[in-house]
Amino acid sequence: MVDDTRVVTEAHLRRIVTLDTQLVDMVEGAFVALAEGRVMMPPIMSVELHERNAEIDAKTAYVSGLDSVALKVSTGFFDNPKQGLPSLGGMVTVLSALDGSVRAVLLDRGYLTDLRTAAAGAVAARHLAPESVSTAGVIGTGLQARLQMQAAHLVRPFERVLVWGRDLEKAAACAADLARDIGCEAEVCSDPNILVKRSQLVVTTTPSFRPLFAAESLHPELHITAMGSDAPDKQELAGACLARADLYVADSAPQVALRGELRAALASGDWTGGDPVELGQVITGQHPGRRHPRDITIADLTGTGAQDTVIAQHVMDLLDRGTAAA
Amino acid sequence: MVDDTRVVTEAHLRRIVTLDTQLVDMVEGAFVALAEGRVMMPPIMSVELHERNAEIDAKTAYVSGLDSVALKVSTGFFDNPKQGLPSLGGMVTVLSALDGSVRAVLLDRGYLTDLRTAAAGAVAARHLAPESVSTAGVIGTGLQARLQMQAAHLVRPFERVLVWGRDLEKAAACAADLARDIGCEAEVCSDPNILVKRSQLVVTTTPSFRPLFAAESLHPELHITAMGSDAPDKQELAGACLARADLYVADSAPQVALRGELRAALASGDWTGGDPVELGQVITGQHPGRRHPRDITIADLTGTGAQDTVIAQHVMDLLDRGTAAA
Repeated sequence: MVDDTRVVTEAHLRRIVTLDTQLVDMVEGAFVALAEGRVMMPPIMSVELHERNAEIDAKTAYVSGLDSVALKVSTGFFDNPKQGLPSLGGMVTVLSALDGSVRAVLLDRGYLTDLRTAAAGAVAARHLAPESVSTAGVIGTGLQARLQMQAAHLVRPFERVLVWGRDLEKAAACAADLARDIGCEAEVCSDPNILVKRSQLVVTTTPSFRPLFAAESLHPELHITAMGSDAPDKQELAGACLARADLYVADSAPQVALRGELRAALASGDWTGGDPVELGQVITGQHPGRRHPRDITIADLTGTGAQDTVIAQHVMDLLDRGTAAA
Repeated sequence: MVDDTRVVTEAHLRRIVTLDTQLVDMVEGAFVALAEGRVMMPPIMSVELHERNAEIDAKTAYVSGLDSVALKVSTGFFDNPKQGLPSLGGMVTVLSALDGSVRAVLLDRGYLTDLRTAAAGAVAARHLAPESVSTAGVIGTGLQARLQMQAAHLVRPFERVLVWGRDLEKAAACAADLARDIGCEAEVCSDPNILVKRSQLVVTTTPSFRPLFAAESLHPELHITAMGSDAPDKQELAGACLARADLYVADSAPQVALRGELRAALASGDWTGGDPVELGQVITGQHPGRRHPRDITIADLTGTGAQDTVIAQHVMDLLDRGTAAA
């Protein structure tokens, strides 16, 4: 505590906040609030440091009724690995929604973003994936690939996970971690098209600039969550995938048009469906969502300030409870 | 220090950072960097909490060559005074421009914003006010009225200050403080038009929604800095003032069109001059600025992220020096 502000380290946050069903429920609440018009969320603020090969983004949102507002900073310094440092980082400032005072500074180095992003994937899977998923596939082999599969397993307890990455060794390491952490079978797949064909649930977690597989690999009884694209030059899905899906859902309709898969699909002319349905509309029943077990559904997640505010509120509640118990 | 992050209180900041010529020079550097295209500055991120009668703004900018980037949060909770709390607050996160790590969290509650705003007023006066200013006038009676006159006195050591405010008692208190702190004559003026007519330098520091005086009160050998308007509904100067001035200068051309005096002057049709000159262009000589002692000049200051980054860098340098000396 410095003045009246809690200063919380990443190590402390790792002890008290974990990826569990409670967190998935909290993040689901952010999507519901968005769909119900209870969120004030400005566009992402982004500054590029070209000469540093770096970018700084800030997100915020006020969720009506919550007593905290998060202002989340994400950093991407893509030359950091040359110095042995991680590319991604960040922190969260938690303001009181009652008087604007700084309740807390969460020095999470991106940990909370990792968790709320994975939890959003679980929310999408819970409401859009086929009821029965025996095989899940993940494209990408980083931390978020692992977290997305752990989160998806909370809501669709699959028996087998397939992993594809450009680097087969990293894919093997990811598969081994998932087999151990989830306790399921895990296989490396040598072709992302085969991975899609064999899976009922696929999550793409890459910083790709071009499509990862062919639209022809889509098949009945499939849900895909694309969470890698978060910037105006990234793309994981061919525009034809969006056209071929029975339902394409966004976390935030204005945001996916600028930073999600929709951007490229609009540019290529593959998407002519107007404003996409938002995930919160499916959760609240404003939209029926998946209509048939054989449907193909796609969720496009770019990450919202509402998720950041909700996880920050969750952290504040956990910290308050810890103080009360002490 | 928490992990590798300095956490600095308002009290500490008040001890080490003061409103002096060095700070004015630093802030001048921010305007120069803007004019020279060495700043990456996204639009302000703003979220309104209507049901709380509150607003949260965030500003940031990367100034090429500096090793810090500030991300500044400003809060305005306008019902706070009912609970005996100040309306305005905020804090500054200082990121490393080298690797994105969180160098410091400055829990300044708006102190640094107050200083850099006053310093910007001094920069405008230094480059635009008539060489000789015997009488300065300030409209508004709050903290920023006091700071603006202290800052202006650093660059134009006037003999007399005039103060106008809606509340004459507050105006008297402000005048007494200025007489003591600056060591000059100070008078309360009962009419803002008279204040303008008698002054060679005027600074407006109010949250007004309508013009404070008539354009007819403008006279040869006058500079006005309007620093109160920072939001799309505020206005201190009649549009006709901008039309009547020999030179109208913005801190940031895109920003004043949205949040400064230019917005209303464009709406009323009083301004037809296209993109305004920026203060940095006058400082660097890209624009000649004031051409004649009898010119009327106006500076419209909305506050820029570049100022926030520059004062944050200044703070980091002072803190590093303190550590080195200790």
